[in-house]
Amino acid sequence: MDRLHRNERISVLQRILCESPGRIFTLGYFTEMFNCAKSSVSEDIDIIRSSLEKTGAGTIETIPGASGGVRYVPRMSRDVVLKLAERLSAELSGKERILPGGYLYMLDAIYDPGTVSEVGRVFAGYFHDRPVDYVITVETKGIPLAFMTAAYLSKPLVIARRNIEATDGASVNINYVSGSSERIQTMVLPMRSLKRGSWLLFIDDFMKGGGTAKGILELAREFDCRVAGAGVLIETYMPDRDLPVDCFSLLTLYGVDGAAGMTDIKPSPRLLAEGR
Amino acid sequence: MDRLHRNERISVLQRILCESPGRIFTLGYFTEMFNCAKSSVSEDIDIIRSSLEKTGAGTIETIPGASGGVRYVPRMSRDVVLKLAERLSAELSGKERILPGGYLYMLDAIYDPGTVSEVGRVFAGYFHDRPVDYVITVETKGIPLAFMTAAYLSKPLVIARRNIEATDGASVNINYVSGSSERIQTMVLPMRSLKRGSWLLFIDDFMKGGGTAKGILELAREFDCRVAGAGVLIETYMPDRDLPVDCFSLLTLYGVDGAAGMTDIKPSPRLLAEGR
Repeated sequence: MDRLHRNERISVLQRILCESPGRIFTLGYFTEMFNCAKSSVSEDIDIIRSSLEKTGAGTIETIPGASGGVRYVPRMSRDVVLKLAERLSAELSGKERILPGGYLYMLDAIYDPGTVSEVGRVFAGYFHDRPVDYVITVETKGIPLAFMTAAYLSKPLVIARRNIEATDGASVNINYVSGSSERIQTMVLPMRSLKRGSWLLFIDDFMKGGGTAKGILELAREFDCRVAGAGVLIETYMPDRDLPVDCFSLLTLYGVDGAAGMTDIKPSPRLLAEGR
Repeated sequence: MDRLHRNERISVLQRILCESPGRIFTLGYFTEMFNCAKSSVSEDIDIIRSSLEKTGAGTIETIPGASGGVRYVPRMSRDVVLKLAERLSAELSGKERILPGGYLYMLDAIYDPGTVSEVGRVFAGYFHDRPVDYVITVETKGIPLAFMTAAYLSKPLVIARRNIEATDGASVNINYVSGSSERIQTMVLPMRSLKRGSWLLFIDDFMKGGGTAKGILELAREFDCRVAGAGVLIETYMPDRDLPVDCFSLLTLYGVDGAAGMTDIKPSPRLLAEGR
């Protein structure tokens, strides 16, 4: 590569760090790429850290030791998270979203790259200091959110499916009671998906009774894994939901009144209180 | 925000452009954010464009006119795409991946954020000058790839499902013959998912007979939409597959010999020839 000026180096560094958030890069990786001194790269990193912190977008962490280096930790300030939750509350309360049966049409939001990226960033920021080896979800609607969370944490994604696939090899399947439909459902995960003894982070678009989350807890046990937490975009208001894992939701749905065309959806109480 | 130095501005600009590839930002958006002159932002953008082009990572396009601005167009140079295809060929040829029935275990690769991001970038670069209003896939395995392609193109994702969901409203379903299993399968898409008259880009992890792609073509017709192209990570070698749409694959699978523990998988012929 041609020798780059500091301005250009910062641009390249910022791009590489952004495109692999959470991944640790050694300084040597960059000195070799740029053919320049370690001290120059260190100064570049300091400038990037400063710009991230001034704009509330996260920070650059330095990991000491032999396998150390630097990594981009995306975060969002309390204000930005709250604004996002308020914008989504308004967007999802639209009258035209109410479907027969009091369901909300949200596919456009939960598959939209811009929205998914922002929400994934919130989840990754919230769970950033937990032990997470894998991000897990159940097909289908939560996959984009789970994927972006995995991307921001730089961890692999695993997807539990509804049916056994011949093309995935031996698998473990469990049955669980879905909270929303009160039906027995099945969840399948290939044996090879998880290393024993890992920590999982469960991500989904929606939580009602918490049946799916309990299914994930049971599936985790079968793999000798533990669940470090759960992140959902929307939970229905249910103070006595008894979930033996910390669940973070961005929005809380208090009710849908189909006849009146009204949806009561707000930033989650914990978000308003804690401001994480 | 505090007034930033040029170096910090470049870092912030590069991050914002990277985190929303394909999205058009007006210069005014940035001059307001930074509280500085248009000419300064223009010079910053020039530096970022230069660093992107020198590192073969894409470019910054300037869109003229009232709704114009700048956008980051991620690309990969021919070398980088070929190296990625070679690395993935080697990775997926591992003996331990061969499952009973001659299937390949690939879930770890197609759900890995690093790999998915690189492949999505290749697809977005390849189809960048086609008319694309939506990226479409069929659940489940292609979803991460389709999502990242949509993210790099800054277009919404839509996911066709196997079964009707009560929570998605009225939907269109079609039947098609799956090329791999030669069974009749169903594909369902909610009515609200697509605007009539749109162009779709179909993305999937794997293509054998092309049945799923033909299903997508039929589904598109029901919505008065057209398919601008198809991008798959791996296609099986099949010279007489008759697909009425341009299909780009990164890798070609020539065969799996379960007894010998050998998988013959290579960068696709077109990639070797054209070098897109």
